Amino acid sequence: MDKPKIHLTDVTGRDGFQMEKEWIETEDKIHILNRIIGSGIKRIEATSFVSPKAIPQLKDAKEVVRELHRDHVEVMALVPNLKGAELALDSGVDVVNVVLSISETHNKKNVNKTVSESLENVTAIHHLVRDQYKKLNVSLGTTFGCPFEGLYHVEKVSTIISKLHSEGINQITLADTTGMANPTQISRFVETLTKQYPDIQFSLHLHNTRGMGLVNLYAGYHAGIRHFDAALGGIGGCPFAPGATGNVCLEDIVHMLDLMNIPNDPDMNKLIHTSKELERILGYKLSGQVMKAGLANEVVPV
Amino acid sequence: MDKPKIHLTDVTGRDGFQMEKEWIETEDKIHILNRIIGSGIKRIEATSFVSPKAIPQLKDAKEVVRELHRDHVEVMALVPNLKGAELALDSGVDVVNVVLSISETHNKKNVNKTVSESLENVTAIHHLVRDQYKKLNVSLGTTFGCPFEGLYHVEKVSTIISKLHSEGINQITLADTTGMANPTQISRFVETLTKQYPDIQFSLHLHNTRGMGLVNLYAGYHAGIRHFDAALGGIGGCPFAPGATGNVCLEDIVHMLDLMNIPNDPDMNKLIHTSKELERILGYKLSGQVMKAGLANEVVPV
Repeated sequence: MDKPKIHLTDVTGRDGFQMEKEWIETEDKIHILNRIIGSGIKRIEATSFVSPKAIPQLKDAKEVVRELHRDHVEVMALVPNLKGAELALDSGVDVVNVVLSISETHNKKNVNKTVSESLENVTAIHHLVRDQYKKLNVSLGTTFGCPFEGLYHVEKVSTIISKLHSEGINQITLADTTGMANPTQISRFVETLTKQYPDIQFSLHLHNTRGMGLVNLYAGYHAGIRHFDAALGGIGGCPFAPGATGNVCLEDIVHMLDLMNIPNDPDMNKLIHTSKELERILGYKLSGQVMKAGLANEVVPV
Repeated sequence: MDKPKIHLTDVTGRDGFQMEKEWIETEDKIHILNRIIGSGIKRIEATSFVSPKAIPQLKDAKEVVRELHRDHVEVMALVPNLKGAELALDSGVDVVNVVLSISETHNKKNVNKTVSESLENVTAIHHLVRDQYKKLNVSLGTTFGCPFEGLYHVEKVSTIISKLHSEGINQITLADTTGMANPTQISRFVETLTKQYPDIQFSLHLHNTRGMGLVNLYAGYHAGIRHFDAALGGIGGCPFAPGATGNVCLEDIVHMLDLMNIPNDPDMNKLIHTSKELERILGYKLSGQVMKAGLANEVVPV
């Protein structure tokens, strides 16, 4: 029997670039993102429409979105508020991604709102997006734990999802914002939530902060998740864990899925090539493994 | 229901240290290995009794073994031949680990023998070890593929195991020598081999060369493996993949198992402390993730 397909969303432009302290030229961003699109991926979170004061690195959001090759890819952008959503829609994004943390503490630090205020925010954005016939995705930050608050019962997460569900929101990302999740927890959360909300399309946003990125993806897939975020070279990360790795690495995932005969869209060789380009642009060693080690099924001449 | 326990073998002293180009002082080796033993681990592959010309780094094998704290730990050493086995037994090791590659090419490069010659070698060592009432383990290098020859059918691996099995050898390590294995392959190999040889205690020796170390461990555990090798800080590696990570990281595994409530022996905090010591001794950043990011369940004060 054919294995179910995995749909990958590249978040290099958003969760990757936003962590970079050195300015990345707009044309370099566009070049890398268009290369990633050229690999055959079907959804890309290209940037974030946030205050340039909060994240100066993404102040070129509009130019970046404008220059993307749009033939076969859905362009998503993260927004923290209604103003961001308006800007994103004006710039022509296909999917608006609103972030909301399960953790009150993290939500306050991240978007300066209570969770309750953020939920009202989501409602307002949902109406705006719906009126323009675009898609909405809600990312639930710190689903698998918050560095300031610890772990949550799945019921706490489910309570928030039920509010979103009752409004007709049907795309939700469970985000392991700081890489705290473990495979047992992923399995339990996914099994519970997919059973409670069978009409919601859940995706997993995983970080490799403690080395568990790929094993969490594997556990999530076995529990029924078909949509995952990833970033080229594994860039991004958590400001609270210097030296730790960031997002799960896009090309390392594709490499593993190809070996496992799990269908997915991007061309791995194109991704590895682009990851090496990105490494030269950023000027430091990326945490991706396959770009260093080569493909597992590539035989070396003796 | 309680989850089945995982038994970890630390291979820092062997598969870790042997890859280090800079000489590590004997007293530093002994210090680190005794710290690892002090974490509560039950088996340690401390060194290799090989020609000092082949691996100068391990020329102090005898001194290292002599100085280990032996109260609760089995000390294992790798040997390439009968002479090595004699030296290992004279030095007082509990378990002799003979290596043999599935790959003719790799076996020739590694121990300068054909696979057939290596099998005769194993027989001779087995008799010697049995006569001294010690244990024998056979490590099957390149089980999951060889960089020079590609992948193998599980039947090829099984043919070699059947020869070992017919001689009464009951501890076998399936080694992913260069980090080529993927979870689907691990599951298939483990299910096939444990069914064919239910009286053999199989262990998995995994490398994280292409980022799949922990996911392969997870797949192996679910397929029935209870014994795994690992090295502190994830040291070791493959000379053919510069920059790639090495063995699966001992403390990152324990961190994950603890979060998953899978019983195991070592104390994680002691391991992380020792991994940081090892990093200072070796003088470069190790690839372990938890030593950089901190524990997933450690709440940071706001």
